[in-house]
Amino acid sequence: MKQLVILGSTGSIGRQTLEVVRSLPGGFRVLGLAGGRNTGLLSRQIVEFSPRFVCYQGGGAKLPGERVTLEELACNPEADIVVVATSGSVGLAPTLAAIRAGKAVALANKEVLVMAGEFVMAQARFHRARIMPVDSEHSAIWQCLRGEGRGAGRRGARIFLTASGGPFRSRSREELARVTPREALDHPTWKMGEKVTIDSATLMNKGMEAIEARWFFDVPWEDIQVLIHPESIVHSLVEFPDGSVKAQLAAPDMRLPIQYALTYPRRRPNPGLPHLDLARLGALHFEAPDLERFPCLRLALEAGRVGGTCPAVLSAADEVAVELFRDHHIGFLGIPRLVEGVLEGHNPIPHPDLEEIMSADAWAREKARNLVSSGGSTWQA
Amino acid sequence: MKQLVILGSTGSIGRQTLEVVRSLPGGFRVLGLAGGRNTGLLSRQIVEFSPRFVCYQGGGAKLPGERVTLEELACNPEADIVVVATSGSVGLAPTLAAIRAGKAVALANKEVLVMAGEFVMAQARFHRARIMPVDSEHSAIWQCLRGEGRGAGRRGARIFLTASGGPFRSRSREELARVTPREALDHPTWKMGEKVTIDSATLMNKGMEAIEARWFFDVPWEDIQVLIHPESIVHSLVEFPDGSVKAQLAAPDMRLPIQYALTYPRRRPNPGLPHLDLARLGALHFEAPDLERFPCLRLALEAGRVGGTCPAVLSAADEVAVELFRDHHIGFLGIPRLVEGVLEGHNPIPHPDLEEIMSADAWAREKARNLVSSGGSTWQA
Repeated sequence: MKQLVILGSTGSIGRQTLEVVRSLPGGFRVLGLAGGRNTGLLSRQIVEFSPRFVCYQGGGAKLPGERVTLEELACNPEADIVVVATSGSVGLAPTLAAIRAGKAVALANKEVLVMAGEFVMAQARFHRARIMPVDSEHSAIWQCLRGEGRGAGRRGARIFLTASGGPFRSRSREELARVTPREALDHPTWKMGEKVTIDSATLMNKGMEAIEARWFFDVPWEDIQVLIHPESIVHSLVEFPDGSVKAQLAAPDMRLPIQYALTYPRRRPNPGLPHLDLARLGALHFEAPDLERFPCLRLALEAGRVGGTCPAVLSAADEVAVELFRDHHIGFLGIPRLVEGVLEGHNPIPHPDLEEIMSADAWAREKARNLVSSGGSTWQA
Repeated sequence: MKQLVILGSTGSIGRQTLEVVRSLPGGFRVLGLAGGRNTGLLSRQIVEFSPRFVCYQGGGAKLPGERVTLEELACNPEADIVVVATSGSVGLAPTLAAIRAGKAVALANKEVLVMAGEFVMAQARFHRARIMPVDSEHSAIWQCLRGEGRGAGRRGARIFLTASGGPFRSRSREELARVTPREALDHPTWKMGEKVTIDSATLMNKGMEAIEARWFFDVPWEDIQVLIHPESIVHSLVEFPDGSVKAQLAAPDMRLPIQYALTYPRRRPNPGLPHLDLARLGALHFEAPDLERFPCLRLALEAGRVGGTCPAVLSAADEVAVELFRDHHIGFLGIPRLVEGVLEGHNPIPHPDLEEIMSADAWAREKARNLVSSGGSTWQA
């Protein structure tokens, strides 16, 4: 039985990870849970799964189990798999702690590889820690690459990262300017956390996934393309050097990629997971993304191409921008404007170490807040 | 450099195999070629590839190289890969000769596994001969299963075999009754031989491929489904026990599955092969097949389910029926009527040996001819 640690157990991915654990009895023992501020849900999870170690914020009532820090939980000697389902830059330090302890890491926290992909993957190679994607797109690519070898097969493979296009795929630029936080938080196919839902609406999410894919699979930047696919059934595709393309398809349900990572290399039947019915679905559509109407995707792809500290700055500026948008301080198109403003003021450092990444991150957050507070009402447009 | 023998080098698959050999210089040496009656083309191939062994019919001018039989060519001690690109039941004996000599067999001849799949695959296991599919659908399934293991992964995998639906996909039964041989020989996406083109129009081809798939991949009959996909881009799909589906996609070009088999397990870049552009393609469609309008598919699926000598009888009756249709002796819907008539008169033998298969084949051919000659003009409808 594999010993599992889940960082971010009260978030969307954390909850679905526990659903997978519940549906595969005898497969996993929950060794540790880290929740955020939602101690109500965390305490219910603790009652159900009886983890020996727990981590939570705030000084409320003491919860059962030995209380430890995120980093201590991530490198617990008994843990086999560490699921990093936190959100934002907070996931970076515990991911590195897990890697240095040689754990298998199931990584759902986008920002970790966006901010520090080169550094994190080098650490994983050095410590022989397996990093497994949990995102549906990266899981699809991982599944398509399975059995294709590290040599001839993987070398020269091109990645087509699919994107639903978000809820505003067909809107004009004028319509996009008027999008409200409530609309942006209502994603048509995926049920996700707030930050990633808004990032999906701006397509920032897809640009960040392209950066993640570059590091996850060690492919040259120019061999990654984004493809709009509104049905969210084809989760991504890989083209091999002979021109053959493999795709992974499934009903949009995060439990599948979570389970794939947890049970890898086995595939376990799970009657709770939905099956695909292509004849009933009828058609799958594909189109090129529109970088004019979705400047966040353009900015992320540019940051990915330049590399160095640029993706960390992009990610930090976006985190601030999404928060400001959600709280009605800036408009929907203010998100890319703000991120672009921050990126324009940044002097990228190539092959950064962790300190340089963290200082670029801090600089970007401050810069973003300053730009908005000095710009006043112009950010509402 | 791999030593190659090509049986049926003047047919569609044979010619495209030589194109692949030509486009991968240094990869293959053509050790032997077997052509049929087309000695003009065969002699040009002999001039270009200088095979040491040749096989051809008739007693015309002697061609260069040592003349041998099909079976002798198939088990030549120096051959590494034997490409069986013959058509009809003639491919069975040389395939078995190659298997018994432990060769890697690239199998394009459908009838071999349709007639004698259980027997042929048992022989291949016994003699540790690798049977590689060359058909685009089976190559797709083979590629999707790659790296998924013989155990947990392959056990419980379901196969979705795609079919273009043929040129008459949208025609009514009344319109189908009036289809001429000229129309049936004009396939919209694939350039193939005459027999397989007509079989594609009746969907008999797809039912036979389902029977082949059953033996190629050792999956239970009920785990194979046919899915109509008019664009012929998704060449087939595999669903794994966890509900995840993998698909193989490519522009419709037989040189890709031929090359995949010849270079397996490597994937070699080939600038001559077309690349897929999904955004330009726009959409991929899927629908369930209509067994009412395409009774050949229903008959083949029934023969596959019953098993034993039924698929051999189906295949032999179809070979006769297609010939009679091509020569204007029976109508387009006469093909399924004739095949059904022959099957109705057959008493299937389970787990047949080669002799029982060959005698069922001979019986079916005679029965088919008798039914037509005794039915007279009623077969024209």
